[in-house]
Amino acid sequence: MAPDQGAARLTPAQRLAWLRLIRTENVGPATFRQLINRFGSAEAALEALPSLIRRSGKSVRIASQSEAEDEIAGLTRYGARLVASSDPDYPPLLHYIPAAPPLLTLAAGPNLDWQRTVGIVGARNASAAGVKMTRLLATDLGDRGYTIVSGLARGIDAAAHQATLTTGTVAVLAGGFDRIYPAENIPLAHAILDHGGALLTEMPLGWEPRARDFPRRNRLVSGLSLGIVVVEAAKRSGSLITARFALEQNRDVFAVPGSPLDPRAEGGNALIQQGAKLITSAADIIETLGSADPSRSALFDRDWEPDPAPDAPPPSADDKSRLLAALGPTPIEVDELVRQSGLSAASMQMLLLELDLAGQIEWSSGQLVALRY
Amino acid sequence: MAPDQGAARLTPAQRLAWLRLIRTENVGPATFRQLINRFGSAEAALEALPSLIRRSGKSVRIASQSEAEDEIAGLTRYGARLVASSDPDYPPLLHYIPAAPPLLTLAAGPNLDWQRTVGIVGARNASAAGVKMTRLLATDLGDRGYTIVSGLARGIDAAAHQATLTTGTVAVLAGGFDRIYPAENIPLAHAILDHGGALLTEMPLGWEPRARDFPRRNRLVSGLSLGIVVVEAAKRSGSLITARFALEQNRDVFAVPGSPLDPRAEGGNALIQQGAKLITSAADIIETLGSADPSRSALFDRDWEPDPAPDAPPPSADDKSRLLAALGPTPIEVDELVRQSGLSAASMQMLLLELDLAGQIEWSSGQLVALRY
Repeated sequence: MAPDQGAARLTPAQRLAWLRLIRTENVGPATFRQLINRFGSAEAALEALPSLIRRSGKSVRIASQSEAEDEIAGLTRYGARLVASSDPDYPPLLHYIPAAPPLLTLAAGPNLDWQRTVGIVGARNASAAGVKMTRLLATDLGDRGYTIVSGLARGIDAAAHQATLTTGTVAVLAGGFDRIYPAENIPLAHAILDHGGALLTEMPLGWEPRARDFPRRNRLVSGLSLGIVVVEAAKRSGSLITARFALEQNRDVFAVPGSPLDPRAEGGNALIQQGAKLITSAADIIETLGSADPSRSALFDRDWEPDPAPDAPPPSADDKSRLLAALGPTPIEVDELVRQSGLSAASMQMLLLELDLAGQIEWSSGQLVALRY
Repeated sequence: MAPDQGAARLTPAQRLAWLRLIRTENVGPATFRQLINRFGSAEAALEALPSLIRRSGKSVRIASQSEAEDEIAGLTRYGARLVASSDPDYPPLLHYIPAAPPLLTLAAGPNLDWQRTVGIVGARNASAAGVKMTRLLATDLGDRGYTIVSGLARGIDAAAHQATLTTGTVAVLAGGFDRIYPAENIPLAHAILDHGGALLTEMPLGWEPRARDFPRRNRLVSGLSLGIVVVEAAKRSGSLITARFALEQNRDVFAVPGSPLDPRAEGGNALIQQGAKLITSAADIIETLGSADPSRSALFDRDWEPDPAPDAPPPSADDKSRLLAALGPTPIEVDELVRQSGLSAASMQMLLLELDLAGQIEWSSGQLVALRY
């Protein structure tokens, strides 16, 4: 069961509050959800933020009403819109990944099938054979009714989109809607939209993608897909990061094998050795995906106590010291932190929110927390 | 425990009787073992054969004493010798395969390690990359102390032998010692012997290899090896037959992956999909073989009753009809045959020997029997 399915559609005011909250500094999808859980709504969280930020001791910029209004107006000019996780047109498979974006920017043809999806990723410096293989796989999958998801990068990504313009393709961006990268693929992005495909990002309009935004984007490529196919990938490549996300999200990982003498095959071959399925055709993929069930993936859920009593006393400076002493560079479960620090769940929740907003902690897969160095 | 280990070395007369028996028409390794089990020795089996053959109703030629003596003299001229499964220098891993040859013809340097062995097989029309990969794997395995086993064919086989001339290599022939195939690899065969490697066959001197002798030979390539590596193999190729034998013999199967666009990679990729280990280096192989234990393979054993009383009445013509009625094209277990036909185990054994000698039945993996059509 998707966490937000069945919720009422957001009012324009609520949508604006959601946008302000997710665009606030140091508020990622995980912190967003905690704030909503703690305060009951985005509006209430925005009201509580100034005092939380004061207590955190850092200066954190809250996105203003007018900035949010400007972004919505800007997106409209690009033919894009905001889709909240509670909206019926939110891509359904994303409900099942940890730290799913509460808001997506989306420009999409209405006829895409978001339930039967395959991600295809691979090397930017793809070989001619790799591009040909991608074209064969993507075309066959498209003809069999699958929507192809990829990252609009050079090489394999571009070949996957190109081959499925007419059957349905989704490009996930690492930056803002107006910051398509690489620039050479701007015409491809337009072709995708012209053919009824989708462009999608969780980043704000105007956001220039940084190196770290690409792995973050990759979790959406896998999160939107029942399974991902790695066509050519060197060791330590972005495609392997996508494969790791797919495993975390309980999605299938497929890899195209290649000669051990070809460095572009190292990543795929290594994935197969680690348990990814060796595939040589779309049929191999479809055979497995026939029984794929994304909902078998654990929902994002931190097992919080029910909302603490609103009149619980705010945590003390001493509580904060105890929490910081219990935290370290190694990710640890919140339950374990509660045990080690002796703090109440309510105090723990408030303190983690403060540290989150101050950018002092980071979450792994939304479940484990560590100090950020 | 190997079935024949610890047995006394054969006397020259016994060795001659073994050779006559195994060279007798329609006597393969399985029938040979049944005859020895039934009659106690090769000499006794040779004495019993004329009456068995009479009862079978076919004309079956028994190898004569002088033919056997001629073969031994001929082998000596080639620097080769007969090695019986009871001899201490019989390749130890062969003890654990179904239908192990009772006698091998062997010309071998005394310093080969027959316990740490890897078979390398692949396409005759190998690509340059396939040959290079073979050379890399074979050289590394040889340097790490492994003896390389192959079939002296063109392409991958030849590359595997060539790369391991100085570290230890074994070529298994499909025909007689004086019928090396293909002729272009006769110099390679000589080089193997010159460097202390081994040439080995179960076929008689003068035997021109027929198509069906190659798969038969392949069971020895895998049987001599802890595991086999398939480097390049088309679908329905001899290398895949070797892989199937290796699985039946409980040996490891390794395959080198390749691009799905390359037909020479089809066999290897398919093997990996079916569970063979994808390998890209000798290290991958050694990691697995470190814990390989060939004796975990089921010994060849048909679960006969202990030798039937020698004075048991010979089976009747009616018994034979009942057995033939119970047999069909689908291989069936002997125990099941006993149940279906109602024959005694003693009668069953004698009748199967008769049918075997008459060439009317064939055994799968030494365990299941079917009518030959």
